[in-house]
Amino acid sequence: MQNIPNDVRARVLNDALPYIQKYNNKIVVIKYGGNAMTNNELKQAVMSDIVLLALVGVKVVLVHGGGPEINDMLRRLGIESKFIGGLRYTDEATIDVVKMVLAGKVNKELVMLLGQYNGKAIGLCGMDEKMLLAERAYGPNDEDLGYVGCITKVNAEPISDALNNGVIPVIATVASDEKGQAYNINADTAAARIAAELKAENLILMTDIAGLLRDKDDPSTLISTVNVSEVPFMKRRGIISGGMIPKIDCCVEAVRRGVKKTAIIDGRVPHSILIEMLSNEGLGTQFR
Amino acid sequence: MQNIPNDVRARVLNDALPYIQKYNNKIVVIKYGGNAMTNNELKQAVMSDIVLLALVGVKVVLVHGGGPEINDMLRRLGIESKFIGGLRYTDEATIDVVKMVLAGKVNKELVMLLGQYNGKAIGLCGMDEKMLLAERAYGPNDEDLGYVGCITKVNAEPISDALNNGVIPVIATVASDEKGQAYNINADTAAARIAAELKAENLILMTDIAGLLRDKDDPSTLISTVNVSEVPFMKRRGIISGGMIPKIDCCVEAVRRGVKKTAIIDGRVPHSILIEMLSNEGLGTQFR
Amino acid sequence: MQNIPNDVRARVLNDALPYIQKYNNKIVVIKYGGNAMTNNELKQAVMSDIVLLALVGVKVVLVHGGGPEINDMLRRLGIESKFIGGLRYTDEATIDVVKMVLAGKVNKELVMLLGQYNGKAIGLCGMDEKMLLAERAYGPNDEDLGYVGCITKVNAEPISDALNNGVIPVIATVASDEKGQAYNINADTAAARIAAELKAENLILMTDIAGLLRDKDDPSTLISTVNVSEVPFMKRRGIISGGMIPKIDCCVEAVRRGVKKTAIIDGRVPHSILIEMLSNEGLGTQFR
Amino acid sequence: MQNIPNDVRARVLNDALPYIQKYNNKIVVIKYGGNAMTNNELKQAVMSDIVLLALVGVKVVLVHGGGPEINDMLRRLGIESKFIGGLRYTDEATIDVVKMVLAGKVNKELVMLLGQYNGKAIGLCGMDEKMLLAERAYGPNDEDLGYVGCITKVNAEPISDALNNGVIPVIATVASDEKGQAYNINADTAAARIAAELKAENLILMTDIAGLLRDKDDPSTLISTVNVSEVPFMKRRGIISGGMIPKIDCCVEAVRRGVKKTAIIDGRVPHSILIEMLSNEGLGTQFR
Amino acid sequence: MQNIPNDVRARVLNDALPYIQKYNNKIVVIKYGGNAMTNNELKQAVMSDIVLLALVGVKVVLVHGGGPEINDMLRRLGIESKFIGGLRYTDEATIDVVKMVLAGKVNKELVMLLGQYNGKAIGLCGMDEKMLLAERAYGPNDEDLGYVGCITKVNAEPISDALNNGVIPVIATVASDEKGQAYNINADTAAARIAAELKAENLILMTDIAGLLRDKDDPSTLISTVNVSEVPFMKRRGIISGGMIPKIDCCVEAVRRGVKKTAIIDGRVPHSILIEMLSNEGLGTQFR
Amino acid sequence: MQNIPNDVRARVLNDALPYIQKYNNKIVVIKYGGNAMTNNELKQAVMSDIVLLALVGVKVVLVHGGGPEINDMLRRLGIESKFIGGLRYTDEATIDVVKMVLAGKVNKELVMLLGQYNGKAIGLCGMDEKMLLAERAYGPNDEDLGYVGCITKVNAEPISDALNNGVIPVIATVASDEKGQAYNINADTAAARIAAELKAENLILMTDIAGLLRDKDDPSTLISTVNVSEVPFMKRRGIISGGMIPKIDCCVEAVRRGVKKTAIIDGRVPHSILIEMLSNEGLGTQFR
Repeated sequence: MQNIPNDVRARVLNDALPYIQKYNNKIVVIKYGGNAMTNNELKQAVMSDIVLLALVGVKVVLVHGGGPEINDMLRRLGIESKFIGGLRYTDEATIDVVKMVLAGKVNKELVMLLGQYNGKAIGLCGMDEKMLLAERAYGPNDEDLGYVGCITKVNAEPISDALNNGVIPVIATVASDEKGQAYNINADTAAARIAAELKAENLILMTDIAGLLRDKDDPSTLISTVNVSEVPFMKRRGIISGGMIPKIDCCVEAVRRGVKKTAIIDGRVPHSILIEMLSNEGLGTQFR
Repeated sequence: MQNIPNDVRARVLNDALPYIQKYNNKIVVIKYGGNAMTNNELKQAVMSDIVLLALVGVKVVLVHGGGPEINDMLRRLGIESKFIGGLRYTDEATIDVVKMVLAGKVNKELVMLLGQYNGKAIGLCGMDEKMLLAERAYGPNDEDLGYVGCITKVNAEPISDALNNGVIPVIATVASDEKGQAYNINADTAAARIAAELKAENLILMTDIAGLLRDKDDPSTLISTVNVSEVPFMKRRGIISGGMIPKIDCCVEAVRRGVKKTAIIDGRVPHSILIEMLSNEGLGTQFR
Repeated sequence: MQNIPNDVRARVLNDALPYIQKYNNKIVVIKYGGNAMTNNELKQAVMSDIVLLALVGVKVVLVHGGGPEINDMLRRLGIESKFIGGLRYTDEATIDVVKMVLAGKVNKELVMLLGQYNGKAIGLCGMDEKMLLAERAYGPNDEDLGYVGCITKVNAEPISDALNNGVIPVIATVASDEKGQAYNINADTAAARIAAELKAENLILMTDIAGLLRDKDDPSTLISTVNVSEVPFMKRRGIISGGMIPKIDCCVEAVRRGVKKTAIIDGRVPHSILIEMLSNEGLGTQFR
Repeated sequence: MQNIPNDVRARVLNDALPYIQKYNNKIVVIKYGGNAMTNNELKQAVMSDIVLLALVGVKVVLVHGGGPEINDMLRRLGIESKFIGGLRYTDEATIDVVKMVLAGKVNKELVMLLGQYNGKAIGLCGMDEKMLLAERAYGPNDEDLGYVGCITKVNAEPISDALNNGVIPVIATVASDEKGQAYNINADTAAARIAAELKAENLILMTDIAGLLRDKDDPSTLISTVNVSEVPFMKRRGIISGGMIPKIDCCVEAVRRGVKKTAIIDGRVPHSILIEMLSNEGLGTQFR
Repeated sequence: MQNIPNDVRARVLNDALPYIQKYNNKIVVIKYGGNAMTNNELKQAVMSDIVLLALVGVKVVLVHGGGPEINDMLRRLGIESKFIGGLRYTDEATIDVVKMVLAGKVNKELVMLLGQYNGKAIGLCGMDEKMLLAERAYGPNDEDLGYVGCITKVNAEPISDALNNGVIPVIATVASDEKGQAYNINADTAAARIAAELKAENLILMTDIAGLLRDKDDPSTLISTVNVSEVPFMKRRGIISGGMIPKIDCCVEAVRRGVKKTAIIDGRVPHSILIEMLSNEGLGTQFR
Repeated sequence: MQNIPNDVRARVLNDALPYIQKYNNKIVVIKYGGNAMTNNELKQAVMSDIVLLALVGVKVVLVHGGGPEINDMLRRLGIESKFIGGLRYTDEATIDVVKMVLAGKVNKELVMLLGQYNGKAIGLCGMDEKMLLAERAYGPNDEDLGYVGCITKVNAEPISDALNNGVIPVIATVASDEKGQAYNINADTAAARIAAELKAENLILMTDIAGLLRDKDDPSTLISTVNVSEVPFMKRRGIISGGMIPKIDCCVEAVRRGVKKTAIIDGRVPHSILIEMLSNEGLGTQFR
């Protein structure tokens, strides 16, 4: 560290000023997942970034998934995964594991890591104060997917209470219906709905790609800004395709519901959140 | 229900008045466990009792264990339980399961059940805002017990924040140390420490026995009130023995640290909490 | 009392839960009068009921009359009562007695009785902070009734201040005009106007009848619920007649001005308020 | 009015400045009685003075008696007054009248009069929120005086609530014991106790004399300031004698309990309160 | 002072009651200037009046100019004043002096004088929290006037913060644009804009004339009230002319933007503010 | 700027985290003067640093002098400076200029500059709400120095009000006594007294030297930390001498009165404040 000279340090901090002013006291929802979650060094950087942002006055909400850890536990318990049209069928045994792993393991580990950077964090899931109410979702062709749910109502109160107390809410995306049946919720979708409900300034989805590329094999064709009205055209042209479709649909939905800006960033870059938020360039692709 | 006549209903409500006045705006910590947790009908009654108490102005804090569900998951994962002097050794794999099951499964199910009675509840564990800091505990003869911990510090802020927002805190007793190592904490002990920290009016431990019996084979010898100064004598006389010792030590400790009253009640009696708190008789044994 | 078994007590309290939830933090205006006020045992029960309701989170406002005590004092002072078309003419001397007896005797005794049940109560009348402004009212055929008044404006501030401080407001229904002339106000009407101004959830008029009967000689013909739109028809049919007319007009008026529910209950039944509010059946007749 | 020139008006207002500063936000308890209460013009001036003081930031508490109106009502009801050693014996019938007249007639008329000067006032008596708890008092030679009481406890909450809401509390000095027995309390004593409890800046007793005179037949011998330590001596010398003794004892008691300054002023002088408080000279005799 | 008898004092104070009620908790903006500022005795009277008004609950905002002191300093520094069409051209050197003298000398002396009357005052100018944003103003025929500005935006926050803390804001009318260029602002105009932004009850412009005269040579022809709709006519008739035009335009503008009442008063009369505000007559001319 | 790579930016921000945590919500008083005030580039950097610190949660108080601008104005006004034992004698004419230049020119320019970086700032001087009360100070040998003052009392209210409103207070160090006589106060001393009164975490004095050097001709002998108990010894040894003495006396005094840490930093280094506060190394010499 000591090889960065003081004047460079001063310039960097100085350069961050307008960005910190911009996000001051604003709500930013970050969907955390992918490599940034499995690689330990990246994970440490994300935790430190979030604590820093919270400290300089950004109201950060962390929403996370936890696919690999769920798979691992299912495997250890000998629960086989059935797939329907590429989507995982979530039966009674599976939803139980999802709930446990997301809310009891991944969530609490993140809370603990933030705590190690002296961040005050609290773990929440959709059941807390009925934060996320859900109903059964179906596949694209109405396939039964078991206990996969879509959100019908967001009660943002526990999130706002935490933010107002200066606490970082960390959210596991399991939900339940009024009868108490648990559902697994896609974390991107949950983050988008929560951002919309909170009238967030910004929604950031961390991914394992550089962003939206005009030519998906050429990183130099990164599109840095997309107006949501261009999305249908880009889908027809195939620029947006495959796994990008649901993620970008989340971005579009969030913007439509009042979130000022959403971005898909490359979580594989260390401190990608700080670079995205506190520098002139940004990373990945923004949707407005 | 319709066979209880109106005048009886009115008298019962009327009789409850002084008890409701007594506990109004006071903190009561309830350690929930045993049959009351495994029997579904008892469980429903406990949930309904807690929502009612919260509603009439009692600040209820629910602390729970979850032994049977942990055992079940350990068995399903093929993790063998080692015992040292009658105490379970908690290795790395075990603490992981404890955390997941307590904070991700049992805790969230309780939050959900309270929600079904229209109680606003939030699930917490020791990691949230570093609520419970712990260090390694050892057996009576200094045996290494693995990741079994004892509490070194309680940060009651998340509990108080919830109570002040009119939300029932439901607490899973896993904790961690400053370095992020998780520990399994005995729920009775945790409840006692939390009650002390909150300067609670009352600590209630739900058990599967009728209370402290002068002759343990004769239920008619129930001792209804014990002054904590009598406990050492009762231990010497063998009135307090076996599994009662650690529970009663918790009661004594809580009273010594400023909790006004603690009680060991018979969780096998439906609505035992309401009977204990809102009637003249009480249930089980009180320690003052 | 000891002959009600614990399980019955628990069931009754448990049954009350949804009703307590329903009225929690809601304003309920109770017009207190009739037998429930002259019979000492009934009076004690009413006081205890009100303190209990206040304690479980209902914001109770008690509005009272005091006919018998006024008559008694008029008689002792040798003031003769003149009647015009069945309505008492209120001259200067009479209004003075009304004011004194209602605000200085009946009101303060109720405040004191509530205090004996550890209820925090404050006595108010229409003069306090100009709570009730009135003007001269006239008989059905424009007869001069002296200082009988009708309310022209309600300043709910002293009532709200009391409720917000956790104090039960007890209201004597004397009022004055801007020039300081005092008026006697019908307590049912005053309760209805106050309930409307406070956007109360519920207005309860305690009476000495079972409720509205389809056949006034047959108690089994009690009508438990009336939609206010049916009232004109019921008047034409003679189901609503005589002394019931003004009382039911108050109910209709209150509902029209935004009170959710009003009820005429039988104050002769002990704990009629608790039964009405905290049980499934209710007592008497509800107007919605 | 128009004969007071503008420059005189300006000078008077200007002269009042330091006095208004001195009493700003301070509590002043005024015992109101005597001629200032029976003479209508004086009464109007007192009401206007109190509203003005409240407006310029003084927290005025008005405590009143009502002897003449009580006597009048007793006479009308044919209740004879028994006297024991010069003190009136208060039997059951009498206390009832005292309560009614003070709390229901005099008190409410004062509230109404203040309202006519656009003062926001509320009537209180000792029963409201158990403001004044009393027990039986006895005569100087332990004579039974019936329901004459002395104050055992002051709950200043309803007074403070009123003052904090910008409302002038008007207090009738009837009280009760814990069992609900009403007592008649001497208004001077009550004012002194209330002033002490409120840590008032000033206690003013309005009387029908010019103040304490060195020679009681020579108004030019008015003593303007007395140190409470001089009182015993003045009693021995007969300067303080007769009806002055209990009044001055109240002043001494109030000063001893922390009231900064007390004064006995001549209520027969119009606007005596304003002159006492907002001018250099003061009226009557001050005790410090 | 001692020659004003007590009864006159009491009557004056009493007469002030309705006016104090009228302005209680209302905002009054006073433009202070002219003789009232240069004559020391008048100045003392103004300071005392303002402290008195603040004390009796009026929220006073003091806006001041400082022409004579600016001229004096310009002369001492040998900076010559250029005039264009009768208006002073404000060059770089001049605006520097204006800023210094107004914000550093006149403003701070007023704050200090108020402090000597125990008034809590704070000095503000247009730069504080960007309270007054300005742009270049031009002469009637578009003449370049240098750094003479007109207000483009008022940020009333520092004024409101002061008022809410019970502090009297004293405002020097220099402003700046977003780039930091300072401008000299006419104090009458600034007072009018500030009054409008604060939704003031009253704007008072202190001048060196008796008010608007129908015949400017005959003081007996003072017009005491003008409806703003009459102003154009009065201008055409020459009743409003010369230096009165901009002052009266300020009054009209303020009334149009929501100030209830504006007045041009004769600052040469001692305590003119008190007479205007707390007596029946008023001084000078009111515009509504 | 674009030549600093993203990873360096991220590392710098990340490194700042613990320092931002350390100063979060803490009060830091900065005495601003010397080259950092006269060199325009340095000035801009200081302004930007202060806005950044305020934004990341530090409660910055800026105290400034203004020697060169005062000298310049004295010269332009032809006021000669008399020196007594090396100290400037401040006569009537001089104090007037000091007040004007400091509070009206320098102070307002700093407020404006902070505003250009979107910092909310307010200009204060000792007269505002009697923030700094002073009395005449004398030279080391009791020489009359004219209107040079020393602080007798600090009223921190206007400073705290500003900080609590999220506004940066900028303080010109002129003061007055109770009679309104203005005094010139040494800015280092004023900063130290203000820091002590506010119980500041940190007091930073910006100077034109590198810090305290063991050998004043060898910059490599910088002493980075001094315990205040060592100061007398260092004075005797001549390590602390000349112009350093009063500055270091301020530091010692501040530490003695409860300021946690004080530092003398080299204001000639761009962004010296950021480097001092947000990096591991610090600049100049700290006193604890």
